[in-house]
Amino acid sequence: MGNEVRLADLAVRIGARLVGDGEVVVTGISPIEEAGPGQVTFLSNPKYVRYAKDSKASAIIAREVVPGAQPAFLLSDNPYFAFACAVEVFHPPARPAPGVSDKAVVEPSARLGRDVAVSPFVVIQEGAEVGDRTVLFPGVCVGKWVSIGPDCLVYPNVVLYHGVKVGSRVILHAGCVIGSDGFGFAPTPDGYRKIPQVGTVEIEDDVEIGANTTIDRATLGVTRVSRGTKLDNLVQVGHNVVIGRDTVIAALVGIGGSTRIGSRVMIGGQAGLAGHLEVEDGIMLGAKCGVPDTLHASESRTWSGVPAMPHPTWLRMAALLPKLPELFRRVKRLEEGKPPRGR
Amino acid sequence: MGNEVRLADLAVRIGARLVGDGEVVVTGISPIEEAGPGQVTFLSNPKYVRYAKDSKASAIIAREVVPGAQPAFLLSDNPYFAFACAVEVFHPPARPAPGVSDKAVVEPSARLGRDVAVSPFVVIQEGAEVGDRTVLFPGVCVGKWVSIGPDCLVYPNVVLYHGVKVGSRVILHAGCVIGSDGFGFAPTPDGYRKIPQVGTVEIEDDVEIGANTTIDRATLGVTRVSRGTKLDNLVQVGHNVVIGRDTVIAALVGIGGSTRIGSRVMIGGQAGLAGHLEVEDGIMLGAKCGVPDTLHASESRTWSGVPAMPHPTWLRMAALLPKLPELFRRVKRLEEGKPPRGR
Amino acid sequence: MGNEVRLADLAVRIGARLVGDGEVVVTGISPIEEAGPGQVTFLSNPKYVRYAKDSKASAIIAREVVPGAQPAFLLSDNPYFAFACAVEVFHPPARPAPGVSDKAVVEPSARLGRDVAVSPFVVIQEGAEVGDRTVLFPGVCVGKWVSIGPDCLVYPNVVLYHGVKVGSRVILHAGCVIGSDGFGFAPTPDGYRKIPQVGTVEIEDDVEIGANTTIDRATLGVTRVSRGTKLDNLVQVGHNVVIGRDTVIAALVGIGGSTRIGSRVMIGGQAGLAGHLEVEDGIMLGAKCGVPDTLHASESRTWSGVPAMPHPTWLRMAALLPKLPELFRRVKRLEEGKPPRGR
Repeated sequence: MGNEVRLADLAVRIGARLVGDGEVVVTGISPIEEAGPGQVTFLSNPKYVRYAKDSKASAIIAREVVPGAQPAFLLSDNPYFAFACAVEVFHPPARPAPGVSDKAVVEPSARLGRDVAVSPFVVIQEGAEVGDRTVLFPGVCVGKWVSIGPDCLVYPNVVLYHGVKVGSRVILHAGCVIGSDGFGFAPTPDGYRKIPQVGTVEIEDDVEIGANTTIDRATLGVTRVSRGTKLDNLVQVGHNVVIGRDTVIAALVGIGGSTRIGSRVMIGGQAGLAGHLEVEDGIMLGAKCGVPDTLHASESRTWSGVPAMPHPTWLRMAALLPKLPELFRRVKRLEEGKPPRGR
Repeated sequence: MGNEVRLADLAVRIGARLVGDGEVVVTGISPIEEAGPGQVTFLSNPKYVRYAKDSKASAIIAREVVPGAQPAFLLSDNPYFAFACAVEVFHPPARPAPGVSDKAVVEPSARLGRDVAVSPFVVIQEGAEVGDRTVLFPGVCVGKWVSIGPDCLVYPNVVLYHGVKVGSRVILHAGCVIGSDGFGFAPTPDGYRKIPQVGTVEIEDDVEIGANTTIDRATLGVTRVSRGTKLDNLVQVGHNVVIGRDTVIAALVGIGGSTRIGSRVMIGGQAGLAGHLEVEDGIMLGAKCGVPDTLHASESRTWSGVPAMPHPTWLRMAALLPKLPELFRRVKRLEEGKPPRGR
Repeated sequence: MGNEVRLADLAVRIGARLVGDGEVVVTGISPIEEAGPGQVTFLSNPKYVRYAKDSKASAIIAREVVPGAQPAFLLSDNPYFAFACAVEVFHPPARPAPGVSDKAVVEPSARLGRDVAVSPFVVIQEGAEVGDRTVLFPGVCVGKWVSIGPDCLVYPNVVLYHGVKVGSRVILHAGCVIGSDGFGFAPTPDGYRKIPQVGTVEIEDDVEIGANTTIDRATLGVTRVSRGTKLDNLVQVGHNVVIGRDTVIAALVGIGGSTRIGSRVMIGGQAGLAGHLEVEDGIMLGAKCGVPDTLHASESRTWSGVPAMPHPTWLRMAALLPKLPELFRRVKRLEEGKPPRGR
C-alpha cells in the first residue's frame, strides 16, 4: 500500500498495453465493485462488465476496452496473469526475517540452509534438511529425515511425518499433514490388523497445498504430487496416489489409494475418486462427481455426476431429473390408453 | 455436577413453567434414555416420547406434558432454549485462569487486554491485539496485526494468519485456520502463476467456528462471517465469500469463492456451493446438495439435490429413482405394443 | 531395510506356505510393479496378475500360485494379513525413545506411566493421565482430566479436549481433534443460544483415527468409538454418535449427531449420515451415499446413492441415468403415436 506508480510504468511491469493517460498515478488495487480514483481494478468475469461502465477507478486490467467506461485500460491477452503481477506491485511479498528462534528445537543432526527462518515452537527432528531461505512458521513439525527444498513457505502447525520429501518453492498452508499413514488393514477373525505404512510422500517443486489438507504416505513406495500442482483446503490424498503436473484440485476432494491422476487435470470441489483407477491428462471433473473407474480423455474431456458420465450427457440428464415424476405420470397414461395431457 | 437445585428455583432460572412438586431437589441433567431420580432431562424429538413415559427422572423439560409420565414437567415454548439454560445451571462454564504463560511468545508490539489467558506455546506476533478476558489455548498462532475481541475462546492449535479480524465472544475450535490464501492461480504457458492473496477475513461477534474448519482470506477485500453465524467442523469457506447473520452451516460444506450467503440460512452437511452465486436470506439447503447458481427464496425456501431443486420436487424425484429400471421396462413394453404387466 | 531373511524363515514368520526354494535370501519388500531380485512382493488385486507373470521378484505373497510366474510363492488364505506381517519383518516399528522433554509442560497433578515419551511443546493439563509407553509427538495438547491408555501413538498437534478418554494401543494421527463441542444451538428471537456441550468422548482400545479427523463431545453423555474401529482422515463424527466395533470409515465421511453405527460396518468415502438414525451391524455403505434414515441389514447388506437404496437397485438405476434423455424422447414418440426409432 502507498506505492505510487505511473500507469505507463505499471503497464510495463505487468506486460500490458495502456489505453489512456500514462501520467496518471495509481496507489493501490481493489475489486471492481469498490475501486475508486487512484486505484487499479480488474475485469475478468463478464458478469462484472456493468461495474466497469460506472467505475471511478483510474485503470482497469482487462482483455479489451469496455465501450463507454471512463477509466484507462491495461490490456492483456492474459488479464488474470497481469492482475497477479499488479497485485505484487502494490503488495510486494514480505517474508519473515531469517533466523532460528531460541524457542525452537532443532536436533543437532538436522541441517539448515542459509537464511532459513525457524519460528518459535518449531521442531526439526534428527537428520532433517531445510533448504535456503525456507520459512517455517510457528508450531511446524518436521519429522526425522524429512527434506524440504529452498524458498518454501511452511505455515503454522503443518506436520511433515518422517522421511517426507518437499521440493523448492513449495507452499504448505496451516495445518496440512503430509505423510500420515495410509488407510490399510487386513481383516482377521480377531479384528483388523494394521498394514504398516513404510513408504513416503514426495511433493515436487512449485506445489501449493491447502490448509488442513491430508496426504498419506505410501504403503510401499511413494505418494507423489508433481511439479506445479495446486491442492485446495481439506483435500484427502490416499496412499500411493500419483498426481501429475500442473493439476488443480479444489476443496474437500477425496482420492482413493493407488489412483493415478494425470497432468493439467482440473477437479471440482467435493469430487471423489475411488482407488486403483486412472484419470488421463487434461481431463476436467465437475464438482461433486464420483469416479468409480478409469476415465479416458478420448471418450470425454469433461465429466460430471455420480457415477461420472461425460459432462454434456450429465447436463441433459440433470435437466430432466426434476421432470421424472411427470414422466412416470405420462407413462401411466400411455399404459391406460389415455391421450397425453393437454391434447 | 453436585449442584442441588429445587425444581421451583430451576423453573425460574430457565424461564419454564413447573407442573409438579417445586420442593423436589435435582442435582444433574441427563439424556432421556439415562436420566434417573434426582435428575432433569429433556424431550425435544417426538421419537423419544416413549422414553418420557417410562422415565424415572425427577423432571422433564418439554413443550407440553406427556400424558401418563411420572416426572414433573418444566414447560417452555422454547424447550431447547430452556434446556440450554438448565445445562448451564448444572455445568457453569469454567474458563482457564487469566495470565500469560512464560512458555508463550508475545511480541512487544502486541497488545493484550485485561485478564487475558495466554497458554504455553502460543505465539502472538507483531502488532496483534487480544481483547479482555479472551482465552488462547496452547499452540494458538496469532499472526501479525491480527485483532481478536474480548471474551473469545480460541482452542488449541488454531491459526490466525496476519491481519485477520475476530469480534467479541467468538469461539474458534481446535485446528481451525482463518485467513489462509484463497485458491487463485493464473494459467500461463509455463504452469500456474499464484495470484497473491492480499485481502483479509473478518469474523464478527458471537460467531462459532468448528474444529479444523478453514476460511480463506480474500484476494482483495474481505471474506466475512457475520454476527451470530455458526460453522460446524471441516467446513471450507473460499476467498471473498460473505456469509450473513445467524446462518448455520453443518460439517464438510464447501463454499466457492465470492459466493454470498444470506442471513438465517441453514446449510446441511456436505452441501457444496459453486463460486460467484447468491443464496438469499432464510433459505434451507439439504445435506449433500450441489448449488450451481443463485437461489431465490421466492422460488423455494428449501432446496435439495444435485443440481439443487426445490425440496418438494427433489422428494418426489428421489422416491422415483429406484423405480427407473422398471420405468424403462414399461416403456419398452409400450413400444412393443404389449399390455402393461399385471393386466 | 537391510534385513536378510531366508524364504523358509520368512514363510514361518508370516504364517505362509512356501512354494519354491527356501534357501533364497530376501532383503526387502516392494510393490509388484517394482519388485526386483532379492525382494518379496504381494499380489492381492486380480488387476495385477499380469505383473506377477513378468516379475523379477524373489517371491510373491498370494492366495495361490500364478501359473507361468518365475518367483517363489508364499501362499496364505489371508494374503493381506501375511503381507502385513512381512512388512514388519523388513520394517520393524521404531518408537521414539521414552522421556519427558524439558520443552514440554506437564502439570504437577498429571500422572505419567512408565516409559512415556513426551515431546517438545506438548501440554498435559491438570489431572490428565498418560499410560505406559505411550508416545506424545510434538505439539499435542492433552486437556484437563483426559485419560490416555498404554501403548498409544499420538502424532503431532493432536488436540484432546478436557475429560476425553482414550483406550490402549490407540493411534491418533496428526491434527485430529477429539472432544470439540457438539454443534447445538437453540434458536431465539435474538439469534442462536449455544447449548453447552458437557458430555465427553470415549475412544476404545485398538482404534485408529486419521489425520485432521474431528470427533465432537456429547451434549450430555458420551460420543463413543468402540474397540478396533478405524477412521480415515477428515472424518466428522457428531455429538453423541456411537460407533460399534471393528467398523471402518473412509475419508471425508460425515456422521450426524446421535446416530448409531453398528459393528463391522464399512462406510465408503464422502458418505453422509443424517442424525438420529441407526446403521445395523455388518452393513456396507457405498462411497458418496446419503443416508437419511435407519438402515436394516435384513433389507440389504449394501447400500448406495442419495438417498441410499440397496446397492443392486442403485447399480441398475445408475446405469440408466445417462439414458434418461433418450427415455423422454421415446415417451414423446409414443405419445405422438409414432413407432419407436429403428423400427
